Amino acid sequence: MIKAAIVGGTGYTGVELLRLLIGHPDVALEVITSRAEAGRRVDELFPNLRGHCDLSFSEPDDATLAACDVVFYATPHNVAMNSVPALLDAGARVIDLSADFRLRDADVWSHWYGEAHACPQVISRAVYGLPEMYREDIVGAQLVACPGCYPTSVQLGFYPLLAAGVVDTASLVANAASGVSGAGRQAKVDNLLSEASDNFKAYGVAGHRHLPEIEQGLTAMAGQPVELTFVPHLLPIVRGILATLYARLTADVDVQALYEEHYQDEPFVDVLPAGQQPQTRSVRGANHCRLAVTRPLGRDTVVVTVVEDNLVKGASGQAVQAMNIMFGLAETAGLDGIALLP
Amino acid sequence: MIKAAIVGGTGYTGVELLRLLIGHPDVALEVITSRAEAGRRVDELFPNLRGHCDLSFSEPDDATLAACDVVFYATPHNVAMNSVPALLDAGARVIDLSADFRLRDADVWSHWYGEAHACPQVISRAVYGLPEMYREDIVGAQLVACPGCYPTSVQLGFYPLLAAGVVDTASLVANAASGVSGAGRQAKVDNLLSEASDNFKAYGVAGHRHLPEIEQGLTAMAGQPVELTFVPHLLPIVRGILATLYARLTADVDVQALYEEHYQDEPFVDVLPAGQQPQTRSVRGANHCRLAVTRPLGRDTVVVTVVEDNLVKGASGQAVQAMNIMFGLAETAGLDGIALLP
Amino acid sequence: MIKAAIVGGTGYTGVELLRLLIGHPDVALEVITSRAEAGRRVDELFPNLRGHCDLSFSEPDDATLAACDVVFYATPHNVAMNSVPALLDAGARVIDLSADFRLRDADVWSHWYGEAHACPQVISRAVYGLPEMYREDIVGAQLVACPGCYPTSVQLGFYPLLAAGVVDTASLVANAASGVSGAGRQAKVDNLLSEASDNFKAYGVAGHRHLPEIEQGLTAMAGQPVELTFVPHLLPIVRGILATLYARLTADVDVQALYEEHYQDEPFVDVLPAGQQPQTRSVRGANHCRLAVTRPLGRDTVVVTVVEDNLVKGASGQAVQAMNIMFGLAETAGLDGIALLP
Amino acid sequence: MIKAAIVGGTGYTGVELLRLLIGHPDVALEVITSRAEAGRRVDELFPNLRGHCDLSFSEPDDATLAACDVVFYATPHNVAMNSVPALLDAGARVIDLSADFRLRDADVWSHWYGEAHACPQVISRAVYGLPEMYREDIVGAQLVACPGCYPTSVQLGFYPLLAAGVVDTASLVANAASGVSGAGRQAKVDNLLSEASDNFKAYGVAGHRHLPEIEQGLTAMAGQPVELTFVPHLLPIVRGILATLYARLTADVDVQALYEEHYQDEPFVDVLPAGQQPQTRSVRGANHCRLAVTRPLGRDTVVVTVVEDNLVKGASGQAVQAMNIMFGLAETAGLDGIALLP
Repeated sequence: MIKAAIVGGTGYTGVELLRLLIGHPDVALEVITSRAEAGRRVDELFPNLRGHCDLSFSEPDDATLAACDVVFYATPHNVAMNSVPALLDAGARVIDLSADFRLRDADVWSHWYGEAHACPQVISRAVYGLPEMYREDIVGAQLVACPGCYPTSVQLGFYPLLAAGVVDTASLVANAASGVSGAGRQAKVDNLLSEASDNFKAYGVAGHRHLPEIEQGLTAMAGQPVELTFVPHLLPIVRGILATLYARLTADVDVQALYEEHYQDEPFVDVLPAGQQPQTRSVRGANHCRLAVTRPLGRDTVVVTVVEDNLVKGASGQAVQAMNIMFGLAETAGLDGIALLP
Repeated sequence: MIKAAIVGGTGYTGVELLRLLIGHPDVALEVITSRAEAGRRVDELFPNLRGHCDLSFSEPDDATLAACDVVFYATPHNVAMNSVPALLDAGARVIDLSADFRLRDADVWSHWYGEAHACPQVISRAVYGLPEMYREDIVGAQLVACPGCYPTSVQLGFYPLLAAGVVDTASLVANAASGVSGAGRQAKVDNLLSEASDNFKAYGVAGHRHLPEIEQGLTAMAGQPVELTFVPHLLPIVRGILATLYARLTADVDVQALYEEHYQDEPFVDVLPAGQQPQTRSVRGANHCRLAVTRPLGRDTVVVTVVEDNLVKGASGQAVQAMNIMFGLAETAGLDGIALLP
Repeated sequence: MIKAAIVGGTGYTGVELLRLLIGHPDVALEVITSRAEAGRRVDELFPNLRGHCDLSFSEPDDATLAACDVVFYATPHNVAMNSVPALLDAGARVIDLSADFRLRDADVWSHWYGEAHACPQVISRAVYGLPEMYREDIVGAQLVACPGCYPTSVQLGFYPLLAAGVVDTASLVANAASGVSGAGRQAKVDNLLSEASDNFKAYGVAGHRHLPEIEQGLTAMAGQPVELTFVPHLLPIVRGILATLYARLTADVDVQALYEEHYQDEPFVDVLPAGQQPQTRSVRGANHCRLAVTRPLGRDTVVVTVVEDNLVKGASGQAVQAMNIMFGLAETAGLDGIALLP
Repeated sequence: MIKAAIVGGTGYTGVELLRLLIGHPDVALEVITSRAEAGRRVDELFPNLRGHCDLSFSEPDDATLAACDVVFYATPHNVAMNSVPALLDAGARVIDLSADFRLRDADVWSHWYGEAHACPQVISRAVYGLPEMYREDIVGAQLVACPGCYPTSVQLGFYPLLAAGVVDTASLVANAASGVSGAGRQAKVDNLLSEASDNFKAYGVAGHRHLPEIEQGLTAMAGQPVELTFVPHLLPIVRGILATLYARLTADVDVQALYEEHYQDEPFVDVLPAGQQPQTRSVRGANHCRLAVTRPLGRDTVVVTVVEDNLVKGASGQAVQAMNIMFGLAETAGLDGIALLP
């Protein structure tokens, strides 16, 4: 059994990681930390875990964490980068669900997060945890930086087109919409039910932190600079992202075949038959990314629609998938739950 | 492996039964029938099953069904009673999720369902599939009549009080609210999102079909006639029932201790610590019934609040639990999934 | 034109009061105060008011307020009682939407609100602003204490039965459910969309602050002590309350006729024809209280179902109705908007 | 008073038209027809109208309709085109909310609606009822074809850019999302709360009926052919459209100033200050179209976000606005209601 720890388990990625790790056949969850809730039973905060989890939150302690085989950070940005270096030195393997190690360039990180990076020298040791692109690197990684929820859907959606070099890389558009759980479990007026339900709006239009992460990934896929217009929106649902992607084709290609071939061996990317459209609820609680590719009226603009559960394939499920790869387990271990529909 | 068939798998209890049986370690799902969708792949209708289920819907056929170890009926009322007798004669074991065999008195059935019962002589062979009350009978049953979703929550909520004989049985009140999935997957204007969302209403106030079923069960628990006022409501959510029960105490009893003791050995009934209240989302997708018992201001009226997922403990999960009991499996086999929260 | 001021206009009752007063033909809104938002344009906080309101929030100032004909308090409890006495002395008429002057007994107030009342000597000058019961007193009132949202629905629902003396007053039950806007615009985790949507739960079961207010009103209606079990629930909608009331009949009475006669002259209480049930959405944005009365199976328990918009008839609309009465306007002035459906 | 009739008043545009016309100071609603509901009181079907409307639905009758000053068609497509010609001959003025007269080319209409147009010779007499573009023509029109809900938001959003000739007209993208009420009040499984809530999906990606209507309008604005990629999505809300528009700038222009100047005299188009984003709820129930224009990171792609209530500015409110113009009333008469927020 792999001994696992979670740092910062009181948010939504935390409780989802708990759900997945508790149900994982090869994992023993040893520790879950929270400064704010130390001493409180986990199932008191998250009643869905009653009968499944006897742990209580504890104060974070490096020695205890380092004694585990793998440590997950389910914290806001700016936490992991301050304590991960010590853990790495102690030999622990770390999977960070936050933004701290996603950007390769510390200056870019500082620009978007408004502060200096705490350990720029560690960035290069981090592997970007998108298995569909970096599976081989994840195998031997000591530190994995899990992609953000929007970046996962947008990158997986554009990947086949960019790898094939069949679209104009200067005019990509990603119109994405996320459930409110993506904003976390913080008490903010904007995320109250009375504000966010029965409503829809764009946000971060002038520039969003996930843009540099996405462009970094798309550039790697394309092998050349990519310019993306990225507009996130807030959906009045709890879980789920739908990214609707637009690209101008520069070659006449069978896009359906291109996608089916590209993803034929991927356990968690599901290309729908032509004519079907993905729905966010079809992946609710599951680690799948489900997508469709369409050429409206047969014109030159291709539309890719991609859904994922932002808390699973967009966060905690992807982290478990990375863990499975790191430890040589079946990649789908603990991730074979069926989405809850309706 | 137990070979299982589902008759009428295109509704919500059907897709939930599919989800549970596909994930069950001891079950092989052999057949799923639907006259309307015969020939269509199941995962085309229910995209959450893509990658998990290769079956297509088929026309119902008695011989095929009888060759299975267990046949689930996930049909509207008035279907099972017309075909179950032949299946029983052929030796099959049947778990009926519909209303056809829940009432012991065929005349009462006829009164509430507006037609004659098709096989009144079979009713006495049916065991009422509430394991917390009839576990021993379920073991050897050939035909199990699964309780309705409201009846499960109301009966489990009142059971300890009635068994202990500590409340006035002539003035019970059950104020219950259900998610819209309880109304099924039929196209009705009243259940459109535009009608049912952002809304709340009572229905069936003058008399609801689940009332005689509930009173039949409560009477058995109490050992004397029981009179219940039952008012169902329609919640603007998909899954979940909350029943808020009111009873007048006739004895001064520690209700918290009463409930904890009564349900201490039940794997799927969770009595909350005093001071906590159950939420429907805490059982979303799980087979648990979670409840709290309270005496407001210490007065003589006791309030029991009970939640369940109407599609799981209120239907398909309960059916799987009955199957586990019938076939000598661990009662929790295939039912250990954790509720999805948030 | 009546010059009006609003104290504390940044919450949901505040913005609803703004909507109603801006649309009122006889009112000029002069001042709206908020310490936190002083200087900020009102329509920046509430974009629905763009083009309808040029005011900015200002610091509260007694002289400015006293110069208005009427001052509305749309504040949390514990604000009005500290500043209303000075305003009354200055001759202003005050309509308080908070809880400060609803309870006639300062000790009871202190018990439920956990602090001493700031001006117990003023309580007796307050008129309880339920027009259907205290219309005559409101005419000449200088200080009106608007009923809470739950109390309005529960009192209006029980009123005909209690006034007629046809029910057992010792065993009343009020099962009520409110939209989340009733919890206000404060940033609390429990009211996040990710927590409160797709969910249903009871709260305050052991005892809720609205209980003494309701029992005070019901006792006045009945002319004798009344004991009520009151259980509030949180609905995953923004606006709307449904109260489902249960009482034991002590006389054989035509409840439909009783209700129709009792409310035949009330402009804002609508008794539905027998067989129909009220829906919260049918009063969304309107000042109506709509109700139905039913005797399930013709038994002795009568069920009254009552809906209102908690922000309108349950708060700001009722306050405007009281103002209309106080100033001799048509009682429906500014309150003739039609509910938004769907 | 203008005597008005509504043909086909049982859908959502019908009930919204009822709400607006009942509240209109210069209109007397005389007739509302429905074959299916003839004889039934309107307020029985739409309980929000209790106390506001004494009409019952009647069978459509040409003479009765022709005796009115204006006849609104709130019917599905393929109804108006079969009866409008006779009404026009009888001298009535007609405002059609359906698709029958929106497209100038009968062949294009036939291609997208799958049948021949019933009165192609009448098409040229229809004025496209978008006041912001065709106000002068509406004044004298006998037949107005109201724009669809998506076309209103997309056309108003692109109008300033196209009129100024500052964007590439060959690569426009409109990513739009609508509440479920846009799909009408028909009983369809896809629009059940259990299917459409807690969900998000694109539809009509390969080609949607509103595309030719939008391109027709954009081409008129640009004075040259326009190619648009249009992807509609289904939001889990009742009312509201958000269109997120993308265009490539071909000139360096102050887009904020461009929009503010273009719409400075429009009573129902509200350009938000730079930095704010529109929300659908800010126009819930109101006739406003509210929009923002942004250049992410100062790059060459401009993003326009536009909200409207699909039942008001996207249908019934726009129809009333057209009526006001046709009859020389104040353009805002009966349309000054404030959006319901929260």
